[in-house]
Amino acid sequence: MITRLTASTLLTKSYRLWSLAGQSKYSVAMGDSESSKSGLSLRQVLDAIHSFAAEELAASWDNVGLLIEPMKPKLIKHILITNDLTEDVMQEAVELGTDLIMSYHPPIFAPLKSITTRTWKERVAASCLENRIALYSPHTSFDSVKGGLNDWLAEAFDLETSRPIEAGVDPQNGFGRLCTLKTVVSLTEAVRLVKLRVNLPHVRVAHARGEVKMITSIAVCAGSGASVLKGVEADLYITGEMLHHDILDAVHQGSNVILTNHSDSERGYLKVFASKLTELLNHSITVSLSVVDRDPLRIV
Amino acid sequence: MITRLTASTLLTKSYRLWSLAGQSKYSVAMGDSESSKSGLSLRQVLDAIHSFAAEELAASWDNVGLLIEPMKPKLIKHILITNDLTEDVMQEAVELGTDLIMSYHPPIFAPLKSITTRTWKERVAASCLENRIALYSPHTSFDSVKGGLNDWLAEAFDLETSRPIEAGVDPQNGFGRLCTLKTVVSLTEAVRLVKLRVNLPHVRVAHARGEVKMITSIAVCAGSGASVLKGVEADLYITGEMLHHDILDAVHQGSNVILTNHSDSERGYLKVFASKLTELLNHSITVSLSVVDRDPLRIV
Amino acid sequence: MITRLTASTLLTKSYRLWSLAGQSKYSVAMGDSESSKSGLSLRQVLDAIHSFAAEELAASWDNVGLLIEPMKPKLIKHILITNDLTEDVMQEAVELGTDLIMSYHPPIFAPLKSITTRTWKERVAASCLENRIALYSPHTSFDSVKGGLNDWLAEAFDLETSRPIEAGVDPQNGFGRLCTLKTVVSLTEAVRLVKLRVNLPHVRVAHARGEVKMITSIAVCAGSGASVLKGVEADLYITGEMLHHDILDAVHQGSNVILTNHSDSERGYLKVFASKLTELLNHSITVSLSVVDRDPLRIV
Amino acid sequence: MITRLTASTLLTKSYRLWSLAGQSKYSVAMGDSESSKSGLSLRQVLDAIHSFAAEELAASWDNVGLLIEPMKPKLIKHILITNDLTEDVMQEAVELGTDLIMSYHPPIFAPLKSITTRTWKERVAASCLENRIALYSPHTSFDSVKGGLNDWLAEAFDLETSRPIEAGVDPQNGFGRLCTLKTVVSLTEAVRLVKLRVNLPHVRVAHARGEVKMITSIAVCAGSGASVLKGVEADLYITGEMLHHDILDAVHQGSNVILTNHSDSERGYLKVFASKLTELLNHSITVSLSVVDRDPLRIV
Amino acid sequence: MITRLTASTLLTKSYRLWSLAGQSKYSVAMGDSESSKSGLSLRQVLDAIHSFAAEELAASWDNVGLLIEPMKPKLIKHILITNDLTEDVMQEAVELGTDLIMSYHPPIFAPLKSITTRTWKERVAASCLENRIALYSPHTSFDSVKGGLNDWLAEAFDLETSRPIEAGVDPQNGFGRLCTLKTVVSLTEAVRLVKLRVNLPHVRVAHARGEVKMITSIAVCAGSGASVLKGVEADLYITGEMLHHDILDAVHQGSNVILTNHSDSERGYLKVFASKLTELLNHSITVSLSVVDRDPLRIV
Amino acid sequence: MITRLTASTLLTKSYRLWSLAGQSKYSVAMGDSESSKSGLSLRQVLDAIHSFAAEELAASWDNVGLLIEPMKPKLIKHILITNDLTEDVMQEAVELGTDLIMSYHPPIFAPLKSITTRTWKERVAASCLENRIALYSPHTSFDSVKGGLNDWLAEAFDLETSRPIEAGVDPQNGFGRLCTLKTVVSLTEAVRLVKLRVNLPHVRVAHARGEVKMITSIAVCAGSGASVLKGVEADLYITGEMLHHDILDAVHQGSNVILTNHSDSERGYLKVFASKLTELLNHSITVSLSVVDRDPLRIV
Repeated sequence: MITRLTASTLLTKSYRLWSLAGQSKYSVAMGDSESSKSGLSLRQVLDAIHSFAAEELAASWDNVGLLIEPMKPKLIKHILITNDLTEDVMQEAVELGTDLIMSYHPPIFAPLKSITTRTWKERVAASCLENRIALYSPHTSFDSVKGGLNDWLAEAFDLETSRPIEAGVDPQNGFGRLCTLKTVVSLTEAVRLVKLRVNLPHVRVAHARGEVKMITSIAVCAGSGASVLKGVEADLYITGEMLHHDILDAVHQGSNVILTNHSDSERGYLKVFASKLTELLNHSITVSLSVVDRDPLRIV
Repeated sequence: MITRLTASTLLTKSYRLWSLAGQSKYSVAMGDSESSKSGLSLRQVLDAIHSFAAEELAASWDNVGLLIEPMKPKLIKHILITNDLTEDVMQEAVELGTDLIMSYHPPIFAPLKSITTRTWKERVAASCLENRIALYSPHTSFDSVKGGLNDWLAEAFDLETSRPIEAGVDPQNGFGRLCTLKTVVSLTEAVRLVKLRVNLPHVRVAHARGEVKMITSIAVCAGSGASVLKGVEADLYITGEMLHHDILDAVHQGSNVILTNHSDSERGYLKVFASKLTELLNHSITVSLSVVDRDPLRIV
Repeated sequence: MITRLTASTLLTKSYRLWSLAGQSKYSVAMGDSESSKSGLSLRQVLDAIHSFAAEELAASWDNVGLLIEPMKPKLIKHILITNDLTEDVMQEAVELGTDLIMSYHPPIFAPLKSITTRTWKERVAASCLENRIALYSPHTSFDSVKGGLNDWLAEAFDLETSRPIEAGVDPQNGFGRLCTLKTVVSLTEAVRLVKLRVNLPHVRVAHARGEVKMITSIAVCAGSGASVLKGVEADLYITGEMLHHDILDAVHQGSNVILTNHSDSERGYLKVFASKLTELLNHSITVSLSVVDRDPLRIV
Repeated sequence: MITRLTASTLLTKSYRLWSLAGQSKYSVAMGDSESSKSGLSLRQVLDAIHSFAAEELAASWDNVGLLIEPMKPKLIKHILITNDLTEDVMQEAVELGTDLIMSYHPPIFAPLKSITTRTWKERVAASCLENRIALYSPHTSFDSVKGGLNDWLAEAFDLETSRPIEAGVDPQNGFGRLCTLKTVVSLTEAVRLVKLRVNLPHVRVAHARGEVKMITSIAVCAGSGASVLKGVEADLYITGEMLHHDILDAVHQGSNVILTNHSDSERGYLKVFASKLTELLNHSITVSLSVVDRDPLRIV
Repeated sequence: MITRLTASTLLTKSYRLWSLAGQSKYSVAMGDSESSKSGLSLRQVLDAIHSFAAEELAASWDNVGLLIEPMKPKLIKHILITNDLTEDVMQEAVELGTDLIMSYHPPIFAPLKSITTRTWKERVAASCLENRIALYSPHTSFDSVKGGLNDWLAEAFDLETSRPIEAGVDPQNGFGRLCTLKTVVSLTEAVRLVKLRVNLPHVRVAHARGEVKMITSIAVCAGSGASVLKGVEADLYITGEMLHHDILDAVHQGSNVILTNHSDSERGYLKVFASKLTELLNHSITVSLSVVDRDPLRIV
Repeated sequence: MITRLTASTLLTKSYRLWSLAGQSKYSVAMGDSESSKSGLSLRQVLDAIHSFAAEELAASWDNVGLLIEPMKPKLIKHILITNDLTEDVMQEAVELGTDLIMSYHPPIFAPLKSITTRTWKERVAASCLENRIALYSPHTSFDSVKGGLNDWLAEAFDLETSRPIEAGVDPQNGFGRLCTLKTVVSLTEAVRLVKLRVNLPHVRVAHARGEVKMITSIAVCAGSGASVLKGVEADLYITGEMLHHDILDAVHQGSNVILTNHSDSERGYLKVFASKLTELLNHSITVSLSVVDRDPLRIV
C-alpha cells in the first residue's frame, strides 16, 4: 500500500476489471446476463426492499429510506450497493450508469441547508441529481431486522440462543444481539471466527480483566456499538469501533472485546443482501456491489 | 378571476409573449440584445452581487447566499429573478434555459433531510440540480443593506431623515427604516403613495386609536414586519403583513398601519435590482424578471 | 374615511343612538325591555356560560374563563359582548354601566407583572377593576365546542359531513372543522358565500396551484388558522389570516385559500351567541353587543 | 397569645389608637399636622423615591417599581409603608384612605394571569384598584443602595470598614455588606446588639465549629441571605432566615450565624425610610407605617 | 451558652461520660452489654435495614443507601446513628471505633469530583475510608415509609385518620402526612404537644389569618416541608423550617404553622429507630446515638 | 497471547522483576538509590508539578489536579506514574507502597455519588483512601502545555514550525499542534516515524482521497482527537482513535490519518515526564512508571 494510484485511475482499473471478471462474481452468482434486464419502477424496487425490512424498524434518530429521487422518473435497471457513498463510489456509480444507489450509511444525515460544491456530502447529493440517480439508505432498519446485519455477524459462531439487546415492538427485531454458544470457545478461536467472517487478516482485541475464561456468551453490535453494549453481561463484545474509556469499562466488568473496523463489521453483509435483493426483484435488475467501497482504515 | 387557465397554459402563453414583448420590458430597458451575451463564471456573478450587498448583512437566523450549485460548472448567460421560487417559476426557469435563479426568499429554509418528490421544496431543489441551474438567495442581506429593499419602500415618500430601526455594525445598514418626512401628509395621501409604489389597486389600513393626526414619521419593514416594528414610535407603520393582535397593539399605541401583501411589499424592488445587477455585470448577462411570480393573494 | 371623528365623539354618537334604536336591534330582538331585568349573581351567569361551553374545552396554552372579578360582589344586570376589548370598547362599557364584559379574545394573555397606565392591556385591566366590571373570555372553548364559532363559519356552506380537525376527548368537540359539501361549488360561489356570512364587501383569495378544480371539501378555522390547517387535505381553506409562506405551502399542496380578517372571521358569531346566552339566562339580564368593536383593518 | 382577637377587631382597635397616639409617633415626629397636607402628583412622589434609590439598582430577577396605578389620577395625600402587603395591611390601607402603598416586598412577583378572588395576591391587586390606591415596591433597590437596608442592619455594630459583597456598576451600591468592626466583640455581645436593632426578645444563633473566637468581621444580608452569603469569609453572618444545610455549611467554614426572622431583619428600616421620605417630600404628604404589618412567626 | 468549650474538648467530655452513663441511656435500654456482641456482615445489616424501609421508597432526586463501603470487609460490631454527619460526629465515630455510621441526611449529596481536605464533605468521606467505616443514609426512605419519621411526628397528636400527602405506588407509604384528630385542640395545646415530642423549650408559630379556629386537621412534613405542604388544606402545618413567603401563603390560606428547627423535627425519631434496629439485628450489634449531633440553631 | 496468566500472578512476576531490573530502568537513569530518598510534603510535590504545568491550562470540562488526598498527611517518598489507573495498576501501587499516584487520565471524571465496591471507579477511590495514597491527574493541562504531550508526539517529525490548534490565553499553550515539516516526507516514512515514537509494531492508516501527495504539514492531537482536529487543514492527522464517520470526513477533505491506540499515543510521554519530575524534585523522591499499565487493545 506504499505506492498508491489516484482513486480515479484505480477506479478505471478495478471496475473495468470487475465488469469483466468481477461482475461474474456477483451477476453470475445470480444467474443472469445484464442484457436480459428489463427494469422496474422505483416504486416496485422500494416495495421489494420494504418486504424485507420496513423503515419503521430504524432508530428514531436515524434518517433512512429514499433520500434522493430524481424529478423525471426512469426505470431502474441497475442498482449499486455500498457501505459508504464516498466520492469514489459516486464516481463509480456515474461511470456504471447506475439508476439507484443503496448506501447502508445515510449520505445525508445532518440536514442540508444548501447543495453546493463546498462539502463532500453536498457534492454527492448534487451528483446524484445531476445524473438522475436515486439514493436509498437502510441503515438501522437493517441493524434491527431479524436476518439482518447483526444476525449475520453473530452467526460467525455456532449459536444456541440469540435475542435483540434492545428489543423493538416485535421482540424478534431490535438493536444488538445477545447470544449463547452451543460450544464453549477460547478467545483465540473466537478471534479466528471473527476474522473469517469479516475477511480481515487483523483485528484488535482487549482482554477481560482477571482470570482467563472461556467464551460462552457474546454481545454483538455492528458499527459503533458502545452505547448499545454498555453494561451488557457477556464474555465477549464484538463491534466495529469503541473508544478507549468504554473499552476500559468493558474489560473491568469482565468482558473481552474484539474490534474490526467500523465498516468491516458491516460490509460483508452487503453481499448477502445483494443476493437476497436479486431474488426479491425476480432477477429483473442487475444488482452490483461497489468495488471501490472499503473501510478507510488499514493496519500497516 | 373566475375562469382560470392552468398554470402550465398560462406559463406557455405569458412568457412566450414576454420573450417577445415582455422581454423588451426588461432587456431592452437595459439596452442589450440577448445574442450579445457571452456569459460569466458563477464566481464572477457572485462577486458582483456581493459588491452590492455582502452576505454578512443578513440576519443570523437566515439562510442566504449560494444555496444550489451544479457539480459540472457552466457559464452563466441568463439570470432569472423572482420573489418566491414557486413550482410555476421553476417551470418558467427550465423553459427559459436559465443558468442562475435569484430568489429573494430562500427556497431552502428548513434544512432538507432528503431531496425527493414528496414536498414542493424538495421538488424545486431536485429540479434545479437535474437542470444544472444554480440558486442564490439574498433575503435579509437585501433588507439590511443601504439602498436595498426597505430604502426603496420608504422612498415612496419624500424623506427628511432615515435610519435603520435595528442598526448593524455599520450603522448605515440594518433592519427596518424609521424616517421623518419633509412634508406632513394625511393618511389618505400616504395610502395613495404606497399603492403607487407597490403597484396595487387596494391595500389594507388600520387607523390609530384616538384623534386623527397627520403623518410626520413612518416606520417601514418589508415582508412580515411585526417583530421589527414592535414598539417603534411612528405615525405610520408600512409592512406586508401583520397578525391581528400585533395590529391592535400598534393602533393602541397611536400608529396607523398600511399592509400591502407580504411579497407585494418586496416585489417592486426586484426590478430596481435587476437593473443594478445588469450594470454590475457590465451588460454581459441577460437578467430577466419572472413573469409568473406574484403574490398568491388577491382581493376579490 | 378621510375625515375621521375622534373615537370619543364617535362613541357618544353611536351608542347613544344604539341605546335608542340600536338597542332595539339586540334587546328587542330578545323581546325584553331593560327595566324588567332583575339581575343574577356572577356565579349564576358563569354556570349558564359553562352549560354551553366548559372551560376544559380550551387549548392548554390559552387563558380563558373569569379573568377579572371585583372584590365587592354585585348583581349582574348588563353584559357587553365584544370580540376584542380595545380601549374604545372599554370606554363604551363604562358609559353603558356594564357589569360583565365577555371578550372573545382574552385581554390578559401574557401575564401581568404590573397594572399601571404604561400599556393598553394594563389600562384595560385597571379600568375594569376601578369600575367593578367583571371580565370573562371564552376564546378557544368557543372555537372547540360543537355549535360554536367554527361550526357557525362552516355553515356558510351546505354541509354533508363535518368533524373537528383536532378532535378532543369528546370527538364532537375540537379545533377546526373539516367538511364535505352536499353540492359541489366553484371558488367564485364559495367566495360569495363567505362574504355573505362574514358581512364583508371584500375578502382575499389565493388560488390552488394547477388545474382549476371545483370545491367539494373545506377546512375551516376562525382567527389565525395556519397551525391547525397545516397539511390538511381540503379543496378550500377558510380562515381569518395566514402568513405568506403558509399560503405558498397551501396553494402548492392544492388548496385554495379565502382570508377574511382575523376578527371578521369571528365577530358574526357573537350575535348568535348573544341570543343563545339570553335564552340560557332566561331573559333576566340585558345582553348587548359592542357597537364600536370592529376589525382594525379596512381595505382601501 | 392564647386568646386572639380577629384581625378585623384588632385593626379597628390598633390603628384607631394609632390615628390618635400612634400617628403622633410618626407624624408628630415629622412635625406636621395632617390638615396641612396639600398632596403631590404620583409623578412627584416617584421622583422623590428615585432620588434616593433608582430602580436600576434592583436585581435582574426582581419586580420593583410602580406595580399598580389607578386609571383616574388623584393627588397623593397619604402614603402607607409596609414590609408585606398582607390582606390585613390591605384592610388597614382602605380604612385609612391611603393613596399610595409602599410595600417593601413586591406583592406581584409571579405575574398574574387573572385578577379574581381566587388567591390572596389577586385579592390584594383587585382591592388596590377598586379603591384607587397606587402600589410601589422598592425591594432589592433598597437592599442595594448605599444608606439602604443592609447598611442600616450592619450599623447595629461600630464599623471600621464596610463594602458590598456583590458590588454593582457603582461599587458603593450592591447586595450584602461585608464589614470589619472597630472593636472586637464576643458573640454574646453581637447577639445583644442585633436584638436591640431589630427590636426582638429572641433570635436564633448557630455557633461556628471549632474554638470559640471573638468577632472581628461580619457579613450582613437582610431577608433570605444564603445565596449572597455563601462562601463569604466572616466571623459572623447576620440574616433573616437560612435553611439547615446552608447553616451547616456556614458553621463548618468557621462562621457564626444570627437569624432574626425574614421580615424582622427588614422592618426596622422602614421607620428610617419613612422619615427620609417625609424630608424628600418636603413634609407635604402624611407618611405612616402600617401597625398590623408584622412577621408571621413568633417564638412561643 | 456564653462561654463555650471547643467542640473537641466537649466531645472528649460528653461521650466519655456517655460511654459510662449516657451509654446506659441507649444500650442498657436495649438490654445488652457490649461485650456480648459478635457482629454481623455488612450485607446482613443492610438486609435488616431494608426489611424496615426499602430504598425504592426514597425520592427520585435523593441519594440514599450505602454511600461508603470499605474495600477490605470487616464485621460490623458497632453502629452510630446521627441526623447529620458533621465533623464533630465524625470525630466521635472514630474515637468510638464505629464500624457503620447511619446518617439520616446523606453526607454525599452533590456528587464528589475529588476527595481531599478542601471541603468538610470531602474530609468526612476521606475519614470514613481511612478508618474503614461504612456509611448508610436512609433520608427520604424513612420519610416515606409507614411507621417512619412523619408518622412519629404526627403521633404527637391523638389521630383519627392519617394518609400520605404524596402517596407512592403502595398508598400506605409516601411523603408528608395529612391527619384528622380524634379530639379538637387549640393552637396552644398543639404547640404544647409538639414541644413535648421534639423535646424543645421553644418553637416558632405563625397564626392563620382571620378568625381564631380550633385545630381539627394537621399536615406534617419533617425537615423542610414547604414543597410538600404547599396548598394542602389543613388547620395546622407542622414542619422543621419554611421560608417567609411560603409562611405568608400558608397563613393567608387559613393554616396555622408550627416550626421546630429542621433537624429537631427529625432527631427524636432516631431513638425510636435505634431501638427498632436493635430488634431487627437480634441484639447482636451495639447501636448508639451520637451525643454531639444537634441542630446548629439555638434560640437565645 | 493464547495462554494468559491472571493479572495478579502477572503483577507479582512483572514488577518484582522490575524492582530488581526494571527499576534500574528508571531509577538508575535518574542516578539515585531508593534508600537515599528522604521524601517531601505533598504541598512541595504539587508545587513542583505546577511549576511545569499549571492546572489552569486544562480544559474547562476536565477534572484535573489533586483528586484524592488522605486526611492524615504523610511524607511522599514514592510516586507511581500511569496512563490509566486500572485496578491492576491500583494493586501494583499498593504492593509498591506508593504514596502518590499520578494518573494521566482522571480516575474520577463523572462525579461520585457513593464510594463502594459496586463499580471499579469507586473501588479505586476507596483503595487509595484505605491505603492513604494521594492521587493527582494532569490530563489536559499536559495536553495543553508547551513541552507537553502533544509537542512530544509532534516531535516524532523534524519540525519547521509548530503552534497550538486551539491556542489559550498564552498563545504558546493550547490543544492540539499544527506543524510544518523541515523536510517533505512520504506517508510511508511518516508511518515509520510514528511507530518509532509510540513504540508499536502496527498502526492504522487511512489514505487521503485523490492524488497521492507528500506530507508537508501535520495536525497532532493525542488521545481522541476528532473534535480538535475537525476541519483543520493538514496533510496528515495523527491521533489515538477516531470514529468512522470522522475518518471519512478527514480523507474527503484531503487529509491522511494515522491512528495508534488512544493511550499508546500518550503513554510514551510519561517516561519523559518521569525524568522531568525527578529533576524538579531534586531527586529526593523515587519516581516509577507502572509496568502493568498498557493500552487494553492489541492487534492480533
